[in-house]
Amino acid sequence: MHLVSIVLSGGAGTRLWPVSRQALPKPFMHLGGSSLLQQAIERGQACGAGATTIVTNQDYLFLTRGVLGGLSDPPQVRYLLEPKGRNTAPAIALAALACAQQYGTDAVMLVLPADHLIPDTESFVACALEAARHAQQGQLVVFGVPPTTPETGFGYIEVEKASRNSQKALRFVEKPDLSTAQQYLATGRFYWNSGMFCFSAGTLLQAMKDHAPQVLAAAEHAFGDSTSQDGVTRFDAHAFGLQPDISIDYAVMERATNVTLVPAKFGWSDVGSWPAVAQAHPADTSGNTFVDADGTEFAAVETTGTHVQVESHTPKVVATIGVQDLVIVDTPDALLVAHKNSAQKVKTVVDLLKERKHESTQLPAAVHRPWGTYATLKEESGYKVKRITVKPGQSLSLQYHHQRAEHWVVVQGMAIVQIGEEEHETMPGQYRYIPLKEKHRLTNIGKDELVLIEVQCGAYLGEDDIVRLADVYGRA
Amino acid sequence: MHLVSIVLSGGAGTRLWPVSRQALPKPFMHLGGSSLLQQAIERGQACGAGATTIVTNQDYLFLTRGVLGGLSDPPQVRYLLEPKGRNTAPAIALAALACAQQYGTDAVMLVLPADHLIPDTESFVACALEAARHAQQGQLVVFGVPPTTPETGFGYIEVEKASRNSQKALRFVEKPDLSTAQQYLATGRFYWNSGMFCFSAGTLLQAMKDHAPQVLAAAEHAFGDSTSQDGVTRFDAHAFGLQPDISIDYAVMERATNVTLVPAKFGWSDVGSWPAVAQAHPADTSGNTFVDADGTEFAAVETTGTHVQVESHTPKVVATIGVQDLVIVDTPDALLVAHKNSAQKVKTVVDLLKERKHESTQLPAAVHRPWGTYATLKEESGYKVKRITVKPGQSLSLQYHHQRAEHWVVVQGMAIVQIGEEEHETMPGQYRYIPLKEKHRLTNIGKDELVLIEVQCGAYLGEDDIVRLADVYGRA
Repeated sequence: MHLVSIVLSGGAGTRLWPVSRQALPKPFMHLGGSSLLQQAIERGQACGAGATTIVTNQDYLFLTRGVLGGLSDPPQVRYLLEPKGRNTAPAIALAALACAQQYGTDAVMLVLPADHLIPDTESFVACALEAARHAQQGQLVVFGVPPTTPETGFGYIEVEKASRNSQKALRFVEKPDLSTAQQYLATGRFYWNSGMFCFSAGTLLQAMKDHAPQVLAAAEHAFGDSTSQDGVTRFDAHAFGLQPDISIDYAVMERATNVTLVPAKFGWSDVGSWPAVAQAHPADTSGNTFVDADGTEFAAVETTGTHVQVESHTPKVVATIGVQDLVIVDTPDALLVAHKNSAQKVKTVVDLLKERKHESTQLPAAVHRPWGTYATLKEESGYKVKRITVKPGQSLSLQYHHQRAEHWVVVQGMAIVQIGEEEHETMPGQYRYIPLKEKHRLTNIGKDELVLIEVQCGAYLGEDDIVRLADVYGRA
Repeated sequence: MHLVSIVLSGGAGTRLWPVSRQALPKPFMHLGGSSLLQQAIERGQACGAGATTIVTNQDYLFLTRGVLGGLSDPPQVRYLLEPKGRNTAPAIALAALACAQQYGTDAVMLVLPADHLIPDTESFVACALEAARHAQQGQLVVFGVPPTTPETGFGYIEVEKASRNSQKALRFVEKPDLSTAQQYLATGRFYWNSGMFCFSAGTLLQAMKDHAPQVLAAAEHAFGDSTSQDGVTRFDAHAFGLQPDISIDYAVMERATNVTLVPAKFGWSDVGSWPAVAQAHPADTSGNTFVDADGTEFAAVETTGTHVQVESHTPKVVATIGVQDLVIVDTPDALLVAHKNSAQKVKTVVDLLKERKHESTQLPAAVHRPWGTYATLKEESGYKVKRITVKPGQSLSLQYHHQRAEHWVVVQGMAIVQIGEEEHETMPGQYRYIPLKEKHRLTNIGKDELVLIEVQCGAYLGEDDIVRLADVYGRA
């Protein structure tokens, strides 16, 4: 059997603001030591998938490559880069076409959203292998999660018997209201639709042909208009955009008759909101969960059921007194204090801030670039202080600024600083000055991350005062 | 009449952590545009006090002078510097001795704690002048605040008639329990003891002689052992420490028979806790209060009765969802989230953090020094980034460090940077390098504040790696 994991790396995770942002969405959020995306990739590898296809927005290519670069044993990866967000039906159709082309229609696709949390890999692998066996027999397999609460945020799948064995899926139903969900729960015959699937490329394509021919046709058209290089497939934006914006459930699963449900025998969370994040962490005796940043200190007095999570440039103490069931998420540029019961409304805040064009919905406090990151430590009239990191072997564009001079102090790692035509090796504790209008470039020549403190001085310090003369990322 | 305002600048304001800290206590907290201490000084001036005596801990001299330096029309000030905290009886006794010596026993003392909020100066002045008239007739005057709630955190004063006119104070009572406070409130004959007083120096000294001769004797002894220079009186620590730690209420007011109560006809708050701070700010239609820092943005969804206050190195957004009656105070190194009903327990957190020796109870995020301030913007292995401010005309000590080199960029103001034997005029945008073990000194030669960004590089970056060769503040 040729098993390919298909990682759908889409979810914006708006309800996980201020950690999840447009430029650094939920798959890149760290939970339990690594990013959710990394965990999805490794989950596929654990099942024996030698190759991974990652379907993601083109804006996230370098971030995704960063995650892959951090793996000790990275899989062979093919990227399908979406020019814009589309739903799961087009994403899976394109992945199936790519998979069939590359590995044949018998190849088995294990479809894994990149923003799920499954702590027990061993149990997951057992279920996935069972799913793969059904897939080899021409079944469309969906992983159903035995519901523990009458959740109204998930779709449900009905089966015939209240049993924990794999069986035919009778019916897919949309997110129910509470009383319907309670009825579902009582019967023992309903599962949460996890959004994880398994089928052969051939079975999926045939099912699409039968039940959603227009989706398949549009995908074939987009795939025909794509270009591939070094494992990266890019689509023509227009052809891609002609694909209908519908889910695989709606397009195929609800209509097909060869659908098998494999019950999840592992803990699962789609980490849909902050209370779900809290649940993923061990609680103290009062039900409080703390996510530690270096140097963070917590002092909780008469506090119960509260989740505290901190990212800070400098060590910070968080004290809570007389509060219950709160979510407190503190980042350098945004603080959220919400009741757990209102955690779904984080989206409302994000919408509000988007209306006000507030940067905190777009950019994280540490902005990621192909070469590394930058974060503003202080900004006042006439100057700005930034912490800049550059990945090993990476380089910023050769650039100059009309309105600012820059003072650079390398504090960690090794750099080559080009100023004008000269290149200067620069070690920790060494300083370089970039005069106004002088072309310059920063390159990490070490094996470790390069960290630089930059003090910009000038009357105007906007990010748009940059003239790029040369750029290895094609931005010049 | 010679009116002298006596500003008692003591209150630690532990319950106002994390804004109030040991090194920057409550009198220095800004509320309504200026510090509470400044407001107390100006309140005295508004009553016609030409001279002000400030009784404060010797550690706060430079901070207090900083407040005075910011006044457009500073009064003539005499400082009585306490080597350690004592209660109000010794403080007022010493002030009376100083006052009698300098202006004679007929001088009228208007005693004003430095941590009260009284928005309506005009009404205050009217009451104070009435108090001063009683004082001239040999009365010990106390300002009583008509109670609006059965507050258990204040002492009460009983009068004979439920009237809003000045009358004889019959009895001082300690902080009551709730039911007693409710009874007091019902009678209309009880006032909150505001801690503000008015009497002539002679009347007070006579009352002390009659009712607390040991307090007076100890104060006379301490005053005899003091030295005065340029309006600053310093006490011998031993002699000062021999004074009993008791309040003026207990030592004198409760025992004297010539006590007049002047009812406060002005809004008054002792700003004892965060809810009191909230009350001092205008609320939105949902009862929320926001204290704005530059660039701060608030997004409140389904939030009522909540106070949000932010200090941040960079612009920050604070979002609240589904919460009621919270206090949220965010500073660069400490975040407090408390229910208003638990606001008194902030002290518990401070005690807890003190036990853990957490700096956030001692030093504010921006540490004040005689010459200015410093704040850490970022600290990681091998380096630290600081923002340093120097007041006009001020100078850091001539110093060197064993284990760190420093990169300095002046970003605002004008500096002289001494490195070795050389002095360098340094303007905004200019850089200086301080090598390891090289003596150096920073001086503000401009009329405005000097702001410097410092990048320290070295294996050890503790504040104690400093060798002071010369210091205008006597710290060498």
